[in-house]
Amino acid sequence: MSEKRVIAVDMDVLREAEKNNIIEEAGKLGFEVIFSGGQGFEGFEDAEVIYGGPQVLSSGKDLDRLKWFHSSYAGVNAFLVPGLLPGGVVLSGSSGAFGVAIAEHGMMLTLDLIRNMPKYQERVRNRIWSHDLSFNSIYGSRVTLLGTGDIGSEYAKRIRPFCPESITGVNRSGRVGDENKDLYDRIVTSDQLDAVLPKTDILFMSLPGTKETDRIIDGKRIALLPKNAFIINVGRGNSIDQKALCDSLEKDVIAGAGIDVFETEPLPENDPAWDTKNLLITTHCAGWMDLDFTRRKNVEIFLEYLKAYSKGDPVPGAIDRAVGY
Amino acid sequence: MSEKRVIAVDMDVLREAEKNNIIEEAGKLGFEVIFSGGQGFEGFEDAEVIYGGPQVLSSGKDLDRLKWFHSSYAGVNAFLVPGLLPGGVVLSGSSGAFGVAIAEHGMMLTLDLIRNMPKYQERVRNRIWSHDLSFNSIYGSRVTLLGTGDIGSEYAKRIRPFCPESITGVNRSGRVGDENKDLYDRIVTSDQLDAVLPKTDILFMSLPGTKETDRIIDGKRIALLPKNAFIINVGRGNSIDQKALCDSLEKDVIAGAGIDVFETEPLPENDPAWDTKNLLITTHCAGWMDLDFTRRKNVEIFLEYLKAYSKGDPVPGAIDRAVGY
Repeated sequence: MSEKRVIAVDMDVLREAEKNNIIEEAGKLGFEVIFSGGQGFEGFEDAEVIYGGPQVLSSGKDLDRLKWFHSSYAGVNAFLVPGLLPGGVVLSGSSGAFGVAIAEHGMMLTLDLIRNMPKYQERVRNRIWSHDLSFNSIYGSRVTLLGTGDIGSEYAKRIRPFCPESITGVNRSGRVGDENKDLYDRIVTSDQLDAVLPKTDILFMSLPGTKETDRIIDGKRIALLPKNAFIINVGRGNSIDQKALCDSLEKDVIAGAGIDVFETEPLPENDPAWDTKNLLITTHCAGWMDLDFTRRKNVEIFLEYLKAYSKGDPVPGAIDRAVGY
Repeated sequence: MSEKRVIAVDMDVLREAEKNNIIEEAGKLGFEVIFSGGQGFEGFEDAEVIYGGPQVLSSGKDLDRLKWFHSSYAGVNAFLVPGLLPGGVVLSGSSGAFGVAIAEHGMMLTLDLIRNMPKYQERVRNRIWSHDLSFNSIYGSRVTLLGTGDIGSEYAKRIRPFCPESITGVNRSGRVGDENKDLYDRIVTSDQLDAVLPKTDILFMSLPGTKETDRIIDGKRIALLPKNAFIINVGRGNSIDQKALCDSLEKDVIAGAGIDVFETEPLPENDPAWDTKNLLITTHCAGWMDLDFTRRKNVEIFLEYLKAYSKGDPVPGAIDRAVGY
């Protein structure tokens, strides 16, 4: 058994410059870095630290030396399957790396929905010049954010100059940090959700996938929204009852939805969601790391946490595995 | 000939409440209001003031009593056809009514293009779950605004929190009013356009249709942009050489374009633009008055100008018909 401290990185998406950056910075802290080539995970048995997705955990690899797993995903639910990650291993996630990209995606979905873009584009594909399809505006709309973390706050920043009538944040505590306070007109706790929904034109969801968020938006709550309302979900698929959403859309209970995350991913080919009326689907690509910024920010967060870890300090983004965040 | 002062309104799109608002406010100033029903223009021969589109001018109606024509469009080029509007008639337009809606549309086109939405949606229509198509971000992009009027300024406000590297305004004078100065990192004059284009990732165009703007973006200037650049045009179709744009897109000279306005509208069914690679088409619907806000704002501007007119003051938005703005 070697005495070297090894970091194993499983992120095929990284560019050479980013790999070299990790090698150099980790080297200064006394670590060697190995990278997975494809799915072999060669050398991962020596790793004290793994940085990447959860695939290695189900590869059968012996990870006896592992002390810290840093997920390259913001959501860590894939790591919380009982028995997958050995008990004593610290788990952290890349929350904070995705806010910019996902908020941008959320703004795109919001604008496409509110301006009736999918229907106009269907006409354009058929060379039909028209402007009789009605549309609305963010201007004067009441926006509710379910989830006020990194993604929610970045979305609130971006939607503000579109002059919505109000921006309401909904979270567990009814509070946000001082640095984000000015982004919202008010923050309420989750138990006030049923009172807020009837006064919501745009419901933007960026919740993590936990037991608490499971189907927090069900058919009953969708029916509390006004008929002109849109739901945008860029968090996790578990937080909406997907069948109820599709049924509600078919029955015009609300005006539309823009959904990047699903209960089962990839969305099965025979899933009725594909053809649901007024459902704008994207394929969990909001935070995809093809965006340079997202990839670099992801590495930056890992290296920041690594500095703390190497000093023996607690990993800043460590997750309470019992509650999932 | 009656002695009453008549305002004739040709805007089928108005809702009852908006019509009543005009009747009430104009009544206070001593005017009677008539509304066109369809294309008959009954009673328009009595009008001292007309508010609406240019259709009545080519209807053969005698408009001897007309003193002021207030266009419900922001662009007044349709009114400037020689011989159409009698010589002494004051002409004004609805500039200022469309900024909010058109800037929102422009932001939608920008996000759809930069996130590769049309290609992802083509896959989604075929039930293909994928995230291998690359995309980019407004974050860190260099934005250039050709035209810094109402629409440009509203767009600048909205794109700022997406954290572009820079926002450069281009206009005739190289200056903007103090109230809009903070929206731009710098303002340059049109003669510096060729120097700015190579440093532009997103070119947003909101120019009026004048001789000066005619094909201001031609094939040579498109080629000055970086390969990753996008052009968005929500101003007037004359300001881009449309054939050169389509050719450039087919040859990957730039990454894409989002175009709401065309040289000929409606875009002819056999126009090659419909099928041009990486060209996202909308059908001159950016400022469409189905948006309540746009309609109400349009009426509000007319009533504000009417107050000045009724006092014998110059109409605030009056256009120099020789130059077209």
